[in-house]
Amino acid sequence: MTTTTRYDVTTWPHGDATDDIGAVINDIISAIKSDQREQHVGDGGKPGGVIYIPPGDYRLRTPVHVDISFLRIEGSGHGFTSSSIRFNVPAAEVGHLHELWPGGSRVLVDLPGDGALPPNERAAFVVARTGSPRISSVEFAGFCIDGLHFTGEGPGGNPENSYRNGRIGILAAEPNDSLRIIEMGVVYLEHGLWIEKADALTVHDNFIAECGNAIELREWGQATKVTDNLIGAGPNGHSIYAENHGGLLIAANNVFPRGSSSVHLTGVKRSSVTANRLHSFYPGMVIFDGGSSENLLGANHLLRDLEPWTPFFGVDNGIDDDYGLIRIEGDGNSIIGNHISEVVDPAGVRPAGAAPVIVRIATGVGNHIADNHTVASVVTATANDECFEGQVDALLSGGEADELAVTTVMVDAAARRNTILDSGRDDQVILDRRINAFRATPGIPTDSPEESL
Amino acid sequence: MTTTTRYDVTTWPHGDATDDIGAVINDIISAIKSDQREQHVGDGGKPGGVIYIPPGDYRLRTPVHVDISFLRIEGSGHGFTSSSIRFNVPAAEVGHLHELWPGGSRVLVDLPGDGALPPNERAAFVVARTGSPRISSVEFAGFCIDGLHFTGEGPGGNPENSYRNGRIGILAAEPNDSLRIIEMGVVYLEHGLWIEKADALTVHDNFIAECGNAIELREWGQATKVTDNLIGAGPNGHSIYAENHGGLLIAANNVFPRGSSSVHLTGVKRSSVTANRLHSFYPGMVIFDGGSSENLLGANHLLRDLEPWTPFFGVDNGIDDDYGLIRIEGDGNSIIGNHISEVVDPAGVRPAGAAPVIVRIATGVGNHIADNHTVASVVTATANDECFEGQVDALLSGGEADELAVTTVMVDAAARRNTILDSGRDDQVILDRRINAFRATPGIPTDSPEESL
Amino acid sequence: MTTTTRYDVTTWPHGDATDDIGAVINDIISAIKSDQREQHVGDGGKPGGVIYIPPGDYRLRTPVHVDISFLRIEGSGHGFTSSSIRFNVPAAEVGHLHELWPGGSRVLVDLPGDGALPPNERAAFVVARTGSPRISSVEFAGFCIDGLHFTGEGPGGNPENSYRNGRIGILAAEPNDSLRIIEMGVVYLEHGLWIEKADALTVHDNFIAECGNAIELREWGQATKVTDNLIGAGPNGHSIYAENHGGLLIAANNVFPRGSSSVHLTGVKRSSVTANRLHSFYPGMVIFDGGSSENLLGANHLLRDLEPWTPFFGVDNGIDDDYGLIRIEGDGNSIIGNHISEVVDPAGVRPAGAAPVIVRIATGVGNHIADNHTVASVVTATANDECFEGQVDALLSGGEADELAVTTVMVDAAARRNTILDSGRDDQVILDRRINAFRATPGIPTDSPEESL
Repeated sequence: MTTTTRYDVTTWPHGDATDDIGAVINDIISAIKSDQREQHVGDGGKPGGVIYIPPGDYRLRTPVHVDISFLRIEGSGHGFTSSSIRFNVPAAEVGHLHELWPGGSRVLVDLPGDGALPPNERAAFVVARTGSPRISSVEFAGFCIDGLHFTGEGPGGNPENSYRNGRIGILAAEPNDSLRIIEMGVVYLEHGLWIEKADALTVHDNFIAECGNAIELREWGQATKVTDNLIGAGPNGHSIYAENHGGLLIAANNVFPRGSSSVHLTGVKRSSVTANRLHSFYPGMVIFDGGSSENLLGANHLLRDLEPWTPFFGVDNGIDDDYGLIRIEGDGNSIIGNHISEVVDPAGVRPAGAAPVIVRIATGVGNHIADNHTVASVVTATANDECFEGQVDALLSGGEADELAVTTVMVDAAARRNTILDSGRDDQVILDRRINAFRATPGIPTDSPEESL
Repeated sequence: MTTTTRYDVTTWPHGDATDDIGAVINDIISAIKSDQREQHVGDGGKPGGVIYIPPGDYRLRTPVHVDISFLRIEGSGHGFTSSSIRFNVPAAEVGHLHELWPGGSRVLVDLPGDGALPPNERAAFVVARTGSPRISSVEFAGFCIDGLHFTGEGPGGNPENSYRNGRIGILAAEPNDSLRIIEMGVVYLEHGLWIEKADALTVHDNFIAECGNAIELREWGQATKVTDNLIGAGPNGHSIYAENHGGLLIAANNVFPRGSSSVHLTGVKRSSVTANRLHSFYPGMVIFDGGSSENLLGANHLLRDLEPWTPFFGVDNGIDDDYGLIRIEGDGNSIIGNHISEVVDPAGVRPAGAAPVIVRIATGVGNHIADNHTVASVVTATANDECFEGQVDALLSGGEADELAVTTVMVDAAARRNTILDSGRDDQVILDRRINAFRATPGIPTDSPEESL
Repeated sequence: MTTTTRYDVTTWPHGDATDDIGAVINDIISAIKSDQREQHVGDGGKPGGVIYIPPGDYRLRTPVHVDISFLRIEGSGHGFTSSSIRFNVPAAEVGHLHELWPGGSRVLVDLPGDGALPPNERAAFVVARTGSPRISSVEFAGFCIDGLHFTGEGPGGNPENSYRNGRIGILAAEPNDSLRIIEMGVVYLEHGLWIEKADALTVHDNFIAECGNAIELREWGQATKVTDNLIGAGPNGHSIYAENHGGLLIAANNVFPRGSSSVHLTGVKRSSVTANRLHSFYPGMVIFDGGSSENLLGANHLLRDLEPWTPFFGVDNGIDDDYGLIRIEGDGNSIIGNHISEVVDPAGVRPAGAAPVIVRIATGVGNHIADNHTVASVVTATANDECFEGQVDALLSGGEADELAVTTVMVDAAARRNTILDSGRDDQVILDRRINAFRATPGIPTDSPEESL
């Protein structure tokens, strides 16, 4: 082999990666296309290459366009830090901060940030190639994509709290196979990962937080795994969203607020959401709609409590409490073996006086809701100036609180032939027992010494 | 330290890694053995080394023989692309393909490929050392092992569809400890990973597909994890197979077709198969036999539907539909909280007219089948010339289909003292209620308005 | 950029990493602090750096003090081997061993090892910075931390079996965010990972074994994931321990003996322990105490059997068999869908003649125990001189053994309003049915042919 296949953006002879890493990487990709014609071992292989981003700050003024298979772009640091906290620090304290920005191998996305532009003009990395075969085995590993600033209208008049800047971290726009996104830090982008038409995608062990939307699997796809990520989106955005996917595995993720939803599947079939820890501040945490069918929501921990941090206090996703913390509009889904904690202030429930609904089957047949345990308790909404400490305080509260009356399962009149087992006492479940099957979770005997306490 | 411990196959002064990477790596291993005698810090340490394979095509004509602990072989790209699709592209279109081969850091396995040869002569990488201690902490990370061609008799007369070439990717042939296989691409080998006598093995976040067999844990072993992999095997092969293992954890994998089985445990005890997404085209997806006992199959999503791709249309694994989609021959196993989707063409059911069986306990005592939800529906078998699109279409179909009558649980006369709870309605379960415990999933009231629809 | 951000401990011009890697890394950190002031792209970024440890033996005489964000320390080999087996090899055989020590990128912790010293004087790596923001995105990846020797009073008079030397692998002592510990080998330390005040910590895919304590999450924290690790602690230590955490996800770990407990949560709220494989030699495998509330233990496989290895034969954690294999002192927890195998020698049960208890709710209200399957069998305690082979033999035994009478669920008088469903037959559960809800697992009909066998 006469040429290297390992490239370092800081030693590439053309361009200046600190000024525009996008232009430099595009130039390297051009070189790989030329070089790899000479590298094969007699059978026409085109092995691609690896582009290394050492720790450092690299401005990106030009979208990277990945149109070759087997390209790996890797860094040595996911570099997350909370820009959200930083942008809400009182001005007088900013000078005392150890550092102001995310770090590691950090790509500073300096694109127009106009949500009206086509996606491929506002994405830091665009993976797209038409023709056959689909682009394969592109890998992103171990670096940071930082959208820098939010610029929309935010709560409290602070644009940095808006979660809007039009920017996209990674956009896959054409059919793709075996794409890998691992060990990345993705922060302060309106869309972290926007992946269309994926086959056997891996999104694993990333930190994708303080993005308007974290992971969006769009158009259609199959056999993908979204596993073991730390994820947090904005109040109006998706944490994990998928449309028209089959055989999707969402497992072992820790999804924290905000996020309008934690997991939203639309038109998704025969997929699995298992062993995740999901935390939201709003109703509609998990939504299976648009004909999402035969999916499993199993062995997850769901917590919905209240926003504790002053800058976002009172912000919500606009969804009422009777919408369902878990919302089903589809057939044949299984909701089995989940724990749900619901912690709300009765004064804030919408519609006023309603009992919050935990699982709501709005439409659909043949859904199976079994062996779920809901713990619902009352809290008084309180704002805390400290983000982290406030969240920990909220999480560690409870246990002593008053019980909150909730509807653990509601099956609408439009839904039928569903089965509800051991997921709420007789008085907690609302359904037409003539057209659905039901077995209540046994209650404490009503004449028990306990009941008379 | 006077010598390096980091080696690059492309800069090693002896041999030509593009012509025979096996010979080069063996030569490096010899050097490490000599070098590490000088590297210790006064206490006799033998730290091993790391061998780096940059992106590129490297032919392997000599099996690598790893007989030292602490050797890491790593690349910068798992390089998977679908050779199966490529080898079924019409000849006229091949010239229009962007690329023909897998890529990344790609090892081209050019070994005899004669299945009659001893395994260590047809394996690209052999990990084996006798004596004490067992070989420890060998690591394979981030490269591609490509078996190039299948050469047996394949469906439609195409040898490339045969999944047979005798070749093995990684063979561990002697007792080993803390072996790690991560972020690899393994493709077009008859046996991807063939690991014997493993203790605390890690097989994590790999892409092992289009192999005759994907992961085989042979002889015996313990305390291993097979997690977070994308896996697909051939119609006659194993996706995940283990024999005589204890304490095996199989979790968060996305196992797609074909694969004669998705998970097959034989003589395996006290192990766990949880939070996986499993997809097969045939009966016998999950098999616990050979006295497999006290294992947990929990919180998994299982889908069995029909082969949609023209080259393999009509191929199956030879197992009848009443064998059990999940087959138990052993004691004390738990099948809890799984979703199963079964989608078949009644015209193809074998024996003709039989109801497919979802869980079958053929032999064994004390098995516990609880809280599983089966959705069974009818489809008409149809071949599609497009592999990917056909699969997506099939996955996204359903929901509107007719219900298929199935036996959700069958307990054979040879089995006794098993417990079946909430895993099928009264009319869906076949067992001797005098010698097994049973509670049916409640049905819709028979006089309901729904029933008269 | 005028300076590198990638540092190699073996080429750093000051100090000798083989003699004291701690001093060398501290010197590099000082340099990064100076260098990064010049590296920013006009906006004040401080990107940190990456310090590389090639395979080799590196003595550590000075604790590393990490007080900058975005520092990654990485090696090329986790290097685990069993020192426990090695230190119990008969003297005559030691000379025949292939190697004596762990390897890979190996840090030899040569600190005083006096448990009375402050933790930061006996930790190899200390992550600590006061002020704002919290230290973020420090990463440890792919190397080995070896505590070398245990030095306390051990079973059989062998100090190497004591699991005590005061040494700590990684200590995080101040509030921290998005810390990552991945692909490490951690061995022969009294405390492997001691992490305080963590937010969004990742402990993923490590091998942490033969440590007094493996993972300790102390003080408080939130939104952390401990996933996909191989873990084993000493008889008196913690495998996975957390206090005052909220939103912790413990998933897909394979936790093997010894470990006084496998998972111990104290004061932990709204957290999740799912899809793990847990194996212990003692009662008290899983403990939720100190007001641990609203946690989920779901879809796990738990095995408790007996210590088979001669050097530790007869050693236990001092807990009686009626304490509960799973112990609950808290409110609103869910124990759903687990498999439990209990294998004990009746002659060794304490108190003598007692029935071992599987799940014990000692105090608390509103806990939900549903759909768990216990298999209990009798074994005769036997010592085996071979560690590995003995464990495998023990794991693969069973299935033929006599059934052991156990109490599958015991709810103490101090606990009330708990719900117990399908987790034991009527004769296996002890609770006050007036103040708790109960549904027994259906039994075999008492007049069945089976019963008369």
